[in-house]
Amino acid sequence: MHTKTETQLFREDWITCVLSWQSAICEALEKIDGKAKFKTDEWQRHPDGKGGGGKTRIISNGNVFEKGGVNTSVVYGKVTDVMRKQLKIEGEKWFACGLSLVIHPFNPFVPTVHANWRYLEIYDHWDNVSDQWFGGGADLTPYYLFEEDAGHFHRTLKNAMDPFGKELYPRYKKWCDEYFNNAHRGVETRGIGGVFYDHLKPAHTSVPSDSLKGGEQKMDVGKLFDFQRGNGDCFIDAYIPIVEKRKDLPWNAENKYWQEIRRGRYVEFNLLHDRGTLFGLKTNGRVESILMSLPPTVRFDYNYQPKEGSEEWKLLEVCRNPRDWI
Amino acid sequence: MHTKTETQLFREDWITCVLSWQSAICEALEKIDGKAKFKTDEWQRHPDGKGGGGKTRIISNGNVFEKGGVNTSVVYGKVTDVMRKQLKIEGEKWFACGLSLVIHPFNPFVPTVHANWRYLEIYDHWDNVSDQWFGGGADLTPYYLFEEDAGHFHRTLKNAMDPFGKELYPRYKKWCDEYFNNAHRGVETRGIGGVFYDHLKPAHTSVPSDSLKGGEQKMDVGKLFDFQRGNGDCFIDAYIPIVEKRKDLPWNAENKYWQEIRRGRYVEFNLLHDRGTLFGLKTNGRVESILMSLPPTVRFDYNYQPKEGSEEWKLLEVCRNPRDWI
Repeated sequence: MHTKTETQLFREDWITCVLSWQSAICEALEKIDGKAKFKTDEWQRHPDGKGGGGKTRIISNGNVFEKGGVNTSVVYGKVTDVMRKQLKIEGEKWFACGLSLVIHPFNPFVPTVHANWRYLEIYDHWDNVSDQWFGGGADLTPYYLFEEDAGHFHRTLKNAMDPFGKELYPRYKKWCDEYFNNAHRGVETRGIGGVFYDHLKPAHTSVPSDSLKGGEQKMDVGKLFDFQRGNGDCFIDAYIPIVEKRKDLPWNAENKYWQEIRRGRYVEFNLLHDRGTLFGLKTNGRVESILMSLPPTVRFDYNYQPKEGSEEWKLLEVCRNPRDWI
Repeated sequence: MHTKTETQLFREDWITCVLSWQSAICEALEKIDGKAKFKTDEWQRHPDGKGGGGKTRIISNGNVFEKGGVNTSVVYGKVTDVMRKQLKIEGEKWFACGLSLVIHPFNPFVPTVHANWRYLEIYDHWDNVSDQWFGGGADLTPYYLFEEDAGHFHRTLKNAMDPFGKELYPRYKKWCDEYFNNAHRGVETRGIGGVFYDHLKPAHTSVPSDSLKGGEQKMDVGKLFDFQRGNGDCFIDAYIPIVEKRKDLPWNAENKYWQEIRRGRYVEFNLLHDRGTLFGLKTNGRVESILMSLPPTVRFDYNYQPKEGSEEWKLLEVCRNPRDWI
């Protein structure tokens, strides 16, 4: 009888964690929506099941949520030339497991939210793990600014991170602002941010500490798992109370128009800049699961500018000048 | 007194040609729209006028046209690292002048159209022209298939090309189908195509004939100009009769829904694959002039599939299996 290796147990714990988040988050969203239920599409990368697959869960046309997806995948394969070149991955095989969600509410006063938590392993020629890391984050995209909502979202994320080091939240808050930026428009973030981190590696990894790039970090392996779990665990508390508070606010056609204009920026970011989206599409990922992130209805006007001093303009101002929300 | 060089005269003739197309095309579109007028934004790359600029002409909320742009630019600068790397341009300075248009009608039975005709010059260290070429094309994006419209559009383009060589239309029709493809979805073209060509160089260019890449071609300089002019000149005849024939067809919410779904694919193509768009955005082009190509209202549904045998499905079928329209 085989005894499972620590690596196998770590991977299995992570898969369990991701699947339980998927259930819990879908349940919380269904509950607050009160009408729509998630539909599930299970898919495989190859017909014979080799390469793994995923579970795409989609909600649409609810009371609160116009379109949303909470997707998990457990996938693996050989390192391809595209991965070597574009992801700078050295090694022979890879394994990835993560959850990715984007929720687009109807009401322009309820923000869109995105989150992703992922774990990757790279194997060498002898099937030993040569590199492994966690990445993740959550960010909020409101259409109208409620400072208390931005504060609540950021504080919840900060509280989840603080036990692992007070320096983490400020570092990953900044990374989030830098990452979720529509750089072709100068500085104009997608929303009011959150946290973003990548390449967090267990202390025992064979990658030497002095070769870690900006933002990369090593942590004790147990602490690392708890850090990642803490981030995912706080998601429901970070988002649902904001939905609860704003979902019944009355809105008009002008508010919807602005929401659709800003959703256009969401599309610009996801298709022009988001590394996950571009990588997925370039490596034959499942197109519909990847593009579920795109908003349901969108508007692209030529050179649309909100009136200075208006509520729409105030939102744009914080996208152009990212703020401290704590 | 300086005598103008042949190169200068060639360039000036091309600028004149592009500007006269802009006027003629806007006039023809305004006439058939019957309500909306083009608005003009003139812009410069730098406040001091160095680097050139352009004339962005936008129509919106007309009787027929929901959003459209007919833009010209006359721009020049130093070859940057991004250009060297991404465009494989060798040389010191560049000059570019062209017209780019995208027209999005309201009525789902009137097709969207795109066209672009451009001329580029590259200069060496001694300010001599070291390379120069024309590129261009026009393609049609219907939401419902009228075979006679597709036939008319393609025949008009073919008739303009045939005098310069019977082999040109089939070659550039194929290039168009290959270029305007949403490759992340396998084979699914943006519409029913048209023609696309690039790197057509005058016979006297110093670039050796045996170093021309696939699709690149040399022509006698006078013939080349006439070829390019013939392509632009036929645009109004290629598109306007189709608008005339379809603009008053009654349509319903279902037709609009499908149009917005297909417009989503237009967005996917322009932001994920279109070289001009990506290059413009990466090299500090004027964002609003570049993104005027995006459709006004768009819908992204999860895994939307038209019913087999329906009119919507028939359109999708010809995108998945590009056809000969002559």
